[in-house]
Amino acid sequence: MFTRSALRRTLMTTQHLHPPPISSPLRQISTMTSKSPVVDIHTHVYLPRYMDLLRSRSEVPRVLTLPSGDERLVILADEAKHASDTSQGRPIGSEYYDIAKKMEFMDQHGIDISVISLANPWLDFLGLGQAAPMARMLNTDIEKICAESDGRLFAFGVLPLVEDSLAASTCVKEIETITSTFPHIRGIILGSRGLGHGLDDPALDPVYSALEASGLMIFLHPHYGTGNESFGPRSNGHVLPLALGFPFETTTSIVRLILSGVLDRFPNLRILLAHSGGTLPFLAGRLDSCVAHDPQVASRLKLKPSEYLMKMCYDAVVYHEVGLKATTELVGEGRVMFGTDHPFFPPLKGKDGEEWMSVTTNSAAVKAVLGEEGGEGVMGGNAVRILGLDR
Amino acid sequence: MFTRSALRRTLMTTQHLHPPPISSPLRQISTMTSKSPVVDIHTHVYLPRYMDLLRSRSEVPRVLTLPSGDERLVILADEAKHASDTSQGRPIGSEYYDIAKKMEFMDQHGIDISVISLANPWLDFLGLGQAAPMARMLNTDIEKICAESDGRLFAFGVLPLVEDSLAASTCVKEIETITSTFPHIRGIILGSRGLGHGLDDPALDPVYSALEASGLMIFLHPHYGTGNESFGPRSNGHVLPLALGFPFETTTSIVRLILSGVLDRFPNLRILLAHSGGTLPFLAGRLDSCVAHDPQVASRLKLKPSEYLMKMCYDAVVYHEVGLKATTELVGEGRVMFGTDHPFFPPLKGKDGEEWMSVTTNSAAVKAVLGEEGGEGVMGGNAVRILGLDR
Repeated sequence: MFTRSALRRTLMTTQHLHPPPISSPLRQISTMTSKSPVVDIHTHVYLPRYMDLLRSRSEVPRVLTLPSGDERLVILADEAKHASDTSQGRPIGSEYYDIAKKMEFMDQHGIDISVISLANPWLDFLGLGQAAPMARMLNTDIEKICAESDGRLFAFGVLPLVEDSLAASTCVKEIETITSTFPHIRGIILGSRGLGHGLDDPALDPVYSALEASGLMIFLHPHYGTGNESFGPRSNGHVLPLALGFPFETTTSIVRLILSGVLDRFPNLRILLAHSGGTLPFLAGRLDSCVAHDPQVASRLKLKPSEYLMKMCYDAVVYHEVGLKATTELVGEGRVMFGTDHPFFPPLKGKDGEEWMSVTTNSAAVKAVLGEEGGEGVMGGNAVRILGLDR
Repeated sequence: MFTRSALRRTLMTTQHLHPPPISSPLRQISTMTSKSPVVDIHTHVYLPRYMDLLRSRSEVPRVLTLPSGDERLVILADEAKHASDTSQGRPIGSEYYDIAKKMEFMDQHGIDISVISLANPWLDFLGLGQAAPMARMLNTDIEKICAESDGRLFAFGVLPLVEDSLAASTCVKEIETITSTFPHIRGIILGSRGLGHGLDDPALDPVYSALEASGLMIFLHPHYGTGNESFGPRSNGHVLPLALGFPFETTTSIVRLILSGVLDRFPNLRILLAHSGGTLPFLAGRLDSCVAHDPQVASRLKLKPSEYLMKMCYDAVVYHEVGLKATTELVGEGRVMFGTDHPFFPPLKGKDGEEWMSVTTNSAAVKAVLGEEGGEGVMGGNAVRILGLDR
């Protein structure tokens, strides 16, 4: 991957490239000729304040402290179901909350800039009374971390998206505060539940309206999984929920959003899909065909489903050139952005300084599909342009 | 597409190309130079005997007769849930059971050979006492239809796969009968439930063993959907269960099969995946990565998940060049075979002689990805070779 020294050079050479106005189409392919910085747009942190919240809880999601002092993160209901306390969830260390560790990881892998986001399940499990001030505090925390990073960190913020009749208007206020007060926050991370009823819930319209007006990017990320009831009784560790349930959830939530007409009502919403859109680039044609054969659904929409998909952005966290190529072929390489999913999927042996296979698999796929120079947009140039990281 | 006259010419020129022995790898790419016949390997029929069974039932799956005399097919539980009798399920006409209609459809679209299969839900809803003789009668019926087709029809047979301690041995006997008595049956169609507990059920081992020994192709096809609980309360017709639930089900059932070691115990099983593998070509990398990060699961398997996926065959029923290209890039174009999913997804206007968009979308994708000549393998040459249709 690229070396850190590329950062300053590139930020200088890209200063003149103003990001497009929010409402303009993003279809143009990055044509940067000099080295772009390497940008990681899918990289998580459990902020210290959020860790304290999880440590204080006795129910999932929670952080357990073992007698040894080691901590374990339990975020999925079925992680707690069948296991003894000492094997619940997954081991968690300071790489989950210490920004110095994030920087070490970035230096180790030649990542110049990270756009950090709170990891799932965000504030989904709180009532509005707790979620609203917590969102504000977490956004304040993450802005401060980014502001002190010497230009190396930007962020997706968090909204108090919970099931409450006042949640939408509270989210709208938070969006306004982010826009006016937190310049390093370039978008918000969004789960698939919305206000408790999915992303096709009309109650979300004020939130979509405010997001559209703000120009903030929505980073759509799964948590709950979809299809878990079909995974069967045999133990396959976390493989089925992570490898299948996560991408199914992303896929389903975005298809529901499209079919409900959200993108006709808010055509300038900016959306970035985790894990290269789950399975959406592969299913785009089947989705178009099924809608075309259902006149009632088709007549509700201005475009074919794949045409909405082509307006979205995708990370490159798909671990294989076949999936990456499908993504770049559907939407063009100018809308695809490198990510790592750090600190998840660490090396098994955990040796200091060991490269993370989960990272190198994704950067190798970019090189295989687009070549070293052709991949610079995906590796960082696109993120700089789309999220305005040179501002 | 190709004209019927291509059939005889091609069958003559391909007579010398013996299909590979069953246990040999299928990796070689088709190198046919003259025109291959066009073969449809994903095309269904509700055999007349099966129609009578559905007409006799008062529960799903069933065929309803309306006062007008029109019939409706109700095969999914939720099709019956919220609807009045007259709008349950979908309209069904003679194209679902009349072989003359299948032939008309084939002629209209330049399809030389069809490999027909009973449509879902097959015999899943019967007890073994009814399923076993019904499987035998349906296989006898379909063999007779193919034998009288002047070489234009072959078939995937059906097995009495139901939840019963004697079902596996009954299936083994049926496999032996198919192999010895029904030469036009080149495989069997398999749902995701197996004997009621999924395709990773050890009770299926005798069935897999017999299928491996027989050389019959398994045509894996969805019916129930996966993730239906996440589709939300808003009405989107059949779009979500068909566009998403079907491919999720195929994906999940095959991943469970792989993770349970079935393909290590039966490495020469021949498997053809409906709808280009659901979502598997796109998720192959994520699946490899999740398994690699779970040593307990990884240590059970001889190969990476994607390596098992590369041994399977895929239909080309994915309605878009992006999905088709992902499929051919994962497994090579020599393992991908054209299909139509007839009689599902008929033209909306239903004019006589109208081309089916569901068919032309898939043939156009083959041409877009592989070119007119390069696509001959996918359009038919591969099926001739893999299923031995020149025998």
